[in-house]
Amino acid sequence: MLIQTPDWVKHAVFYQIFPDRFAQSQLPRKRLLKNAAWQDWHEMPTLQGYKGGDLWGVTEQLDYLQNLGITAIYFTPIFQSASNHRYHTHDYYQVDPLLGGNSAFKELLDACHDRNIKVVLDGVFNHSSRGFFFFHDVLENGQHSPWVDWFKIYDWPLYPYDDNFPANYGCWAGIRALPEFNHDNPEVREYIMEIAEYWIKFGIDGWRLDVPFEVKTPGFWQEFRDRVKAINPEAYIVGEVWGDSRQWLDGTQFDGVMNYLFAGPTIAFAAGDRVVPKQVQGPSYEAYPPLSAPEYARKMQELLQLYPWEIQLTQLNLLASHDTARLMSIADGDRQSVELATLLLLTFPGAPSIYYGDEVGLAGGLDPDSRRGFPLEAHWERDILECHRQLIALRHRYPALRTGTYRVLYADADIYVFARILDKEEIIVAVNRGTTSVDVTVFTDDLKSQPSKVLYGDGVAQWHNAGESIRIELSLAARSGCVVGVG
Amino acid sequence: MLIQTPDWVKHAVFYQIFPDRFAQSQLPRKRLLKNAAWQDWHEMPTLQGYKGGDLWGVTEQLDYLQNLGITAIYFTPIFQSASNHRYHTHDYYQVDPLLGGNSAFKELLDACHDRNIKVVLDGVFNHSSRGFFFFHDVLENGQHSPWVDWFKIYDWPLYPYDDNFPANYGCWAGIRALPEFNHDNPEVREYIMEIAEYWIKFGIDGWRLDVPFEVKTPGFWQEFRDRVKAINPEAYIVGEVWGDSRQWLDGTQFDGVMNYLFAGPTIAFAAGDRVVPKQVQGPSYEAYPPLSAPEYARKMQELLQLYPWEIQLTQLNLLASHDTARLMSIADGDRQSVELATLLLLTFPGAPSIYYGDEVGLAGGLDPDSRRGFPLEAHWERDILECHRQLIALRHRYPALRTGTYRVLYADADIYVFARILDKEEIIVAVNRGTTSVDVTVFTDDLKSQPSKVLYGDGVAQWHNAGESIRIELSLAARSGCVVGVG
Repeated sequence: MLIQTPDWVKHAVFYQIFPDRFAQSQLPRKRLLKNAAWQDWHEMPTLQGYKGGDLWGVTEQLDYLQNLGITAIYFTPIFQSASNHRYHTHDYYQVDPLLGGNSAFKELLDACHDRNIKVVLDGVFNHSSRGFFFFHDVLENGQHSPWVDWFKIYDWPLYPYDDNFPANYGCWAGIRALPEFNHDNPEVREYIMEIAEYWIKFGIDGWRLDVPFEVKTPGFWQEFRDRVKAINPEAYIVGEVWGDSRQWLDGTQFDGVMNYLFAGPTIAFAAGDRVVPKQVQGPSYEAYPPLSAPEYARKMQELLQLYPWEIQLTQLNLLASHDTARLMSIADGDRQSVELATLLLLTFPGAPSIYYGDEVGLAGGLDPDSRRGFPLEAHWERDILECHRQLIALRHRYPALRTGTYRVLYADADIYVFARILDKEEIIVAVNRGTTSVDVTVFTDDLKSQPSKVLYGDGVAQWHNAGESIRIELSLAARSGCVVGVG
Repeated sequence: MLIQTPDWVKHAVFYQIFPDRFAQSQLPRKRLLKNAAWQDWHEMPTLQGYKGGDLWGVTEQLDYLQNLGITAIYFTPIFQSASNHRYHTHDYYQVDPLLGGNSAFKELLDACHDRNIKVVLDGVFNHSSRGFFFFHDVLENGQHSPWVDWFKIYDWPLYPYDDNFPANYGCWAGIRALPEFNHDNPEVREYIMEIAEYWIKFGIDGWRLDVPFEVKTPGFWQEFRDRVKAINPEAYIVGEVWGDSRQWLDGTQFDGVMNYLFAGPTIAFAAGDRVVPKQVQGPSYEAYPPLSAPEYARKMQELLQLYPWEIQLTQLNLLASHDTARLMSIADGDRQSVELATLLLLTFPGAPSIYYGDEVGLAGGLDPDSRRGFPLEAHWERDILECHRQLIALRHRYPALRTGTYRVLYADADIYVFARILDKEEIIVAVNRGTTSVDVTVFTDDLKSQPSKVLYGDGVAQWHNAGESIRIELSLAARSGCVVGVG
């Protein structure tokens, strides 16, 4: 089978937005709440309540995102939901009124497309919420509800709000607020397929799928892909699968997954022993214990062997998400860890995804702390923002960084060097995660060119062709990296 | 102030439909439920569960309604709701998926308008449901919800489903499933106004307002009227107010009310001592004890004095609704009671409203029994249907029956005679609710013409002009009525 994934994703730089926390509109807008008592934007996030970010606010920040080099936005859920993260879907056809509703989303979508920015939505199709109409009908009508078979009811009566009794219905992670769909019911399956189709027709550019591994119904995600791609063959489908995802990445289901198999080792290498273990416990990725360069090289090579290359190019690579702590906090405030990992992210095959705020050095521990309000400009880490800007620009400038092959050139102790190669374009990326500066000699005859211009970072690269051995000598400062090209 | 009410209502014959019970589509339709386990159509109605009537089914029955002479439909609620009566609104912008959703409603509305049939929807704006998004958010986020001020929260935590605790929030009639809006909140007020506007723009011809007397906010219904009429000056606004409604019928709020002040006395007169008291206990109308003709005359004259004539012509007159027992059951199966009352209904000023099934003699005690499935043709009471057909046709033929003045000519014991007069058109209506035939002489010089042609019923009318006294002699069979005109 010829595997096909969307071409635009291979060239995209994603920005992940948690809509309640990215931006609140500053312009007059038609709002349901005129004097809302929002939670303080800069106070610690809580499980309940809202800070009041909205989609109009995102539209107003598109200059910022475009200047950063962003070409695609992945939104955590935006549909009507009685939770600030909006994973408790109340209505799959309505954008949350706090976010501005369907009209604000249409305005945003059009504005994004005008700038050639793609928009991917988060589809939460394993479960809904206890306020979701069809489940609510089961609560109100009990066994007489015609929607009973849409869920997994074990026993009567149901206890949707009383923790003193078992929930008596299938719910995600045992959370009674999140009743699971019965995907084996063809009506449910059709219902979900039509939601997917509706929003693709509306104009979105893809779906990120929440916990898709929970859906065991044979053929479900194959049909999902077929129906989405029938409307827009270039729509992106990316699953939230944390580990080995081969069963979903056979070309018949997802174009990629959220690449935590990249995130974990990259943090474990770049941040190394700076990682605060409790900040990486919980999420199912291996950001701890620390990895040496050879161990990291092996992990990356294994990862790149795991799926077809066409899939690798449309993986959603990331260092953090709403489901993890931010690297700044994982690394206990160490800026170099963030910059090194960002270098590795922006030079890896597959689409990098920057979790909102990471580009300005926002800190945040595990959920809900990882969902802070976007900081005031006065609190931005300028160096980190500059690092992001440069690396994103570099990725856009050099196709090899996007679709070139990945070849490890050197890995020893704290030093990791690899090349991205596309036809005649060859780029070398070198990282010294150690605390002392080093001069390292890399013997290689894998390259046709001899890139020596430092495009990013402040290392020095020099080629030597004496005798039969071709080598490059790299000088790297402590805890730094560089990108080297032919210029 | 010049009071203006919609002209079309003065000439309309309404049909009240309880959507779950009137008709289920027989054609292939795009349904969410393909193999729904509906409750048996002909079994006794229950509080929970659905019989599966839908709006497509109504569309398919428009020939039937048009043949009956119906020119307007008043629907009990059709919006998404987890209750078969749909008074527990879950979403004011969505027609219930079981009914076919917004698209089925659009199809129905267009088909009705093609036949010059108006459509009035039931607006439940005092309260929503515990599954309604904004209240659900309060349940999920507690005091942190930004929607807290949209409701009347007395204390925390709330107990939406646990009868062992007080509900701790304002709810209609103490029913915790029905949280009341805080109409004093300008945001809530605006929210409701926009719903009203949305559906008027969508094309509906008016709003029937559920328990509007519960809304105490000054100016609320005035603004409601202003905003609805600004979009469609001919939109009909009719309130559910059971008693003296003067405070709402001043021309600045409703065009009329559900005329239970007509229903009660008319049943008490027509059915008299056949009324089964327990079938009229509960609803706030006086269908018991029996009324003599003079008492009935006085009640009708008082009623006609109560409001401006312009309002009288757009009252929604009725004998039964989803909130009462059906007259067939109130009168313990006595068909003549139904026919006599129907005669009085169809000849009274204001728009008559026939509760679905009443026209074929459907029985039904108090709620939920009054909400039975529409009967199979084999079970129709043909005489009652014919009575309805004839009287509706007569009303359509004679403008005096619609907008003519109402003058009581005679009221004694069991005999009630009145005239409807419009310019030169004079119609006499006579009712003998007694159990023996009578010859009655009515002296009157109120009429310019001497109508003597029996247009309905099988009485005999003969005028005598001897001497100074002009009189009409009417022969009326036991428990019968007739309509007399000039032909």
